Amino acid sequence: MRYKTVGLIGKPSHSASYTSLNILVEELASRECNILIEQRIRDSIDDKSLVVCSMQEIAEQADLAIVVGGDGYMLGAARVLAGFSIDVIGVNRGNLGFLTDINPEGISRQLAHIFADELHREERFLLEAQVHSNNELQSTHVAVNEIVLHHSKVAHMMEFELHIGDDFVFSQRSDGMIIATPTGSTAYSLSGGGPILVPHLDAVTLVPMFPHALSSRPIVVDANSEIRLKISDKNSDNVQISCDSHVVISLAPGDVVTIKKSPNYLSLVHPPEYSYFNVLRTKLNWGSRLF
Amino acid sequence: MRYKTVGLIGKPSHSASYTSLNILVEELASRECNILIEQRIRDSIDDKSLVVCSMQEIAEQADLAIVVGGDGYMLGAARVLAGFSIDVIGVNRGNLGFLTDINPEGISRQLAHIFADELHREERFLLEAQVHSNNELQSTHVAVNEIVLHHSKVAHMMEFELHIGDDFVFSQRSDGMIIATPTGSTAYSLSGGGPILVPHLDAVTLVPMFPHALSSRPIVVDANSEIRLKISDKNSDNVQISCDSHVVISLAPGDVVTIKKSPNYLSLVHPPEYSYFNVLRTKLNWGSRLF
Amino acid sequence: MRYKTVGLIGKPSHSASYTSLNILVEELASRECNILIEQRIRDSIDDKSLVVCSMQEIAEQADLAIVVGGDGYMLGAARVLAGFSIDVIGVNRGNLGFLTDINPEGISRQLAHIFADELHREERFLLEAQVHSNNELQSTHVAVNEIVLHHSKVAHMMEFELHIGDDFVFSQRSDGMIIATPTGSTAYSLSGGGPILVPHLDAVTLVPMFPHALSSRPIVVDANSEIRLKISDKNSDNVQISCDSHVVISLAPGDVVTIKKSPNYLSLVHPPEYSYFNVLRTKLNWGSRLF
Amino acid sequence: MRYKTVGLIGKPSHSASYTSLNILVEELASRECNILIEQRIRDSIDDKSLVVCSMQEIAEQADLAIVVGGDGYMLGAARVLAGFSIDVIGVNRGNLGFLTDINPEGISRQLAHIFADELHREERFLLEAQVHSNNELQSTHVAVNEIVLHHSKVAHMMEFELHIGDDFVFSQRSDGMIIATPTGSTAYSLSGGGPILVPHLDAVTLVPMFPHALSSRPIVVDANSEIRLKISDKNSDNVQISCDSHVVISLAPGDVVTIKKSPNYLSLVHPPEYSYFNVLRTKLNWGSRLF
Repeated sequence: MRYKTVGLIGKPSHSASYTSLNILVEELASRECNILIEQRIRDSIDDKSLVVCSMQEIAEQADLAIVVGGDGYMLGAARVLAGFSIDVIGVNRGNLGFLTDINPEGISRQLAHIFADELHREERFLLEAQVHSNNELQSTHVAVNEIVLHHSKVAHMMEFELHIGDDFVFSQRSDGMIIATPTGSTAYSLSGGGPILVPHLDAVTLVPMFPHALSSRPIVVDANSEIRLKISDKNSDNVQISCDSHVVISLAPGDVVTIKKSPNYLSLVHPPEYSYFNVLRTKLNWGSRLF
Repeated sequence: MRYKTVGLIGKPSHSASYTSLNILVEELASRECNILIEQRIRDSIDDKSLVVCSMQEIAEQADLAIVVGGDGYMLGAARVLAGFSIDVIGVNRGNLGFLTDINPEGISRQLAHIFADELHREERFLLEAQVHSNNELQSTHVAVNEIVLHHSKVAHMMEFELHIGDDFVFSQRSDGMIIATPTGSTAYSLSGGGPILVPHLDAVTLVPMFPHALSSRPIVVDANSEIRLKISDKNSDNVQISCDSHVVISLAPGDVVTIKKSPNYLSLVHPPEYSYFNVLRTKLNWGSRLF
Repeated sequence: MRYKTVGLIGKPSHSASYTSLNILVEELASRECNILIEQRIRDSIDDKSLVVCSMQEIAEQADLAIVVGGDGYMLGAARVLAGFSIDVIGVNRGNLGFLTDINPEGISRQLAHIFADELHREERFLLEAQVHSNNELQSTHVAVNEIVLHHSKVAHMMEFELHIGDDFVFSQRSDGMIIATPTGSTAYSLSGGGPILVPHLDAVTLVPMFPHALSSRPIVVDANSEIRLKISDKNSDNVQISCDSHVVISLAPGDVVTIKKSPNYLSLVHPPEYSYFNVLRTKLNWGSRLF
Repeated sequence: MRYKTVGLIGKPSHSASYTSLNILVEELASRECNILIEQRIRDSIDDKSLVVCSMQEIAEQADLAIVVGGDGYMLGAARVLAGFSIDVIGVNRGNLGFLTDINPEGISRQLAHIFADELHREERFLLEAQVHSNNELQSTHVAVNEIVLHHSKVAHMMEFELHIGDDFVFSQRSDGMIIATPTGSTAYSLSGGGPILVPHLDAVTLVPMFPHALSSRPIVVDANSEIRLKISDKNSDNVQISCDSHVVISLAPGDVVTIKKSPNYLSLVHPPEYSYFNVLRTKLNWGSRLF
């Protein structure tokens, strides 16, 4: 048996998670794991004798976290867990997710594989955005999927300059820009016309949102580049960045946002039968084998 | 001489309009027109003896309105003027516009043509949106370019159903949808991947914004269709429609927005040399004649 | 009973059509219709006493044609039938089509509706292309879905001018251009990024193929416009037009192709439960969601 | 002085190259370089005493090749030169190119920089395609920009499977697929909706051409992946691959095309003022704005 301390995390009061969570408790107990229950799901767990703690404490103490929920819920957990030495497994609630690829009905079988060390582990990098006003760092934020620069009002244009490393790339008038990791390349970025980056690609895609220049196109750059967004003084106060559509930070005209790879990684564990392209085909209704 | 009473409208305190406006006053005076000055530009007009009035009064009393400004400014004027029996000319401030196609340096010559009845007149239809809560009409709004249904927060999904006439078309999860006139098809809708509709086409284009279903595509429907957007009860309170990116109306979950052709038209007048496709080629950097 | 003489048309020697065709014979016989069998399917019909004739003879003598096959097969039949006063029904072979919307298992029930005059009839217009060399008409061709101007070699650029009516629109360097009817807007044109035009819209969409100018966009024009494609003298001899991907005509440098609405219509009959948008949702997986 | 033997290569009998070539001869002579003249441009060179040889001989003997022509001409030269230890400079004929970034009027000044070792050198990787029939290697081909799998007839669908390394990715019905290097990402691939990959990115983009599945999207994969295209037995004989739109190879149903990074690199040299993004902005009119 490999994992000793396992944290259980899930979408609070979501009835579809209830069965999965309690099966997981049983499976983990039978393997003599220390089980930590994230506090927001304590009511869903039948065994009231288990240790209840915060997500932060799970991150610090467990060597495996099992997240039960959709991809959206996983993103929030992943932003916390990524900074720690912990593996993460995603169990969905009936709909296959890109990050939550274990179906509830297969939990026991797939957990058996994983505890037999028959697994597929991969590191997904995160992005870190630093906001600078007058050359002073104001705040730092992380994102698993994407950082979006945008006007706080929909369909309102903003103006900014994009720099990559020492190079000026362009100034753009648009509704904003999406900066997505490979993990995020199948989420919001894809809806906006961005390309799919395979998960292990060390690259980031920059996707303009409703650009005024019709020749604007998605650009793919090295993930080790430093991306700088300089917010034009011409903008009003209503410019923002958002991380994974959750954390929203207001920017002032003249602010500079620096985006680079976070030092933290999400260590994602899949059962052996996992195939990224299989998930992709299923989610996107792509063609299966011809012959 | 054709036009007897002419209203002058312009972007207030915009220095680039100053010369154009005063040349226009001279030209119109020499043709013995009654000149009405829209009140917000009274300070830009050298001849202080002229009648100053509201845009509404110009709409009611003049048979021609000359709007000096960019396309954005024209949209605001057009929403007012469209309800009246008045021709409209657009003079830009140095950058050719789709609606403001007269360049400042050509004003006198082109005005001569227009007053000699050598002109190109066309009617552009507007859209009218009616918001219904619990089957009761709450408010009515018009748009020259487009009506946009969207979440009040960028990159936040909403859910709605689209109906056209008696037909259910689809339910969609997306950031929203653009419903654009041919006039608006070269504006925001085009940035969002919509097709260009030639101005006199009696059609409307529906362009999904960041749709979750990747097979979503722009649809072009008859402009005489009644388009209904039913806002899902699942949405939070943050859903809105905006008209020409100016007027913003908040919607409640369960609201229904009915969009149809407005009974009002914008009667746009161009000099004889006007060519829609020439404007398009110039604005979009398209190829000119080969041979 | 409405239809007196009914022609049966199908994809030759396609076993999946066999059952459908013979059910149709029975249904039509029970309604005392004169049945005409298109010669290429004579071997599939059990009742050898029926009249066998050409598709042209069916077009001339029958008041209803029932086409069993996919949308592709329907296109070929439709190009012949469109010139005549005949209604057309499409029966698919298991996969719902845009033009072949009757499923084999529902034939009897849906035929009962149609013969009870409970039906949905619509006219779909065709395009007509005329090729001119040195101002002389060389040939005339029709298309139900689309006319494609292209180089005979894939990924080889060509140069042409587009004119609509008296207006020069643009010159373009590209792999070619698709000119699609509303019927064709859900076929090749859609794969190429064109918009969906609802079936009764009196419009045509022009979709550039791999254009060099990145600001090129699909344009939607009035179906009553005359569209002219002037092939540049700079092209080699390898330029072609194709109609519905079937008929291919070689063009010479300097040729002009004139495209307009054909005087002929396809009179398509559907059972009462038919819904265009239902077909669209099913074919395009619009229920599918990304996340 | 750095380069000792310099080869001059150009588009044969192209008058616009004449001046540039003879200025180059003068500049190189003044620096006491051995000058090799590619045989197809011997007539353009005034100094008839210079050594005339094949491109292959230049590749073997010179340490610098200067190519005068457009990007298209450079591609042909690059496929030959890439296998050798030789630097390459591109001089355009008046229109800035992605690979031919030295303008004729700046030749002397920029050459001075380059010979003073003030330069920007970068390696661009090539792709190598191997065609296998019945598991036997038939032929090997290289491309600088892209390899395109396609039907030999435009607007004709083909069917194939894509595999990356050991993973099955999808089967696709489409007109074909573009596999482009970063260098090629601003060429044909971009016209087809592919993303821009910055030049030094170690990645390849796969862009579907007119795919039947509307959810098909460009994918970006590691350049060190082995990409395999399995041609379905259902296709007719008319399937091909083409390299940089020049070399065309016919495939048989059942063939497998393996694409990977070529062991050869193009060593491209630019003057110090070179900026990739500046070329991009200029070529794509990114300054242009819609409204």
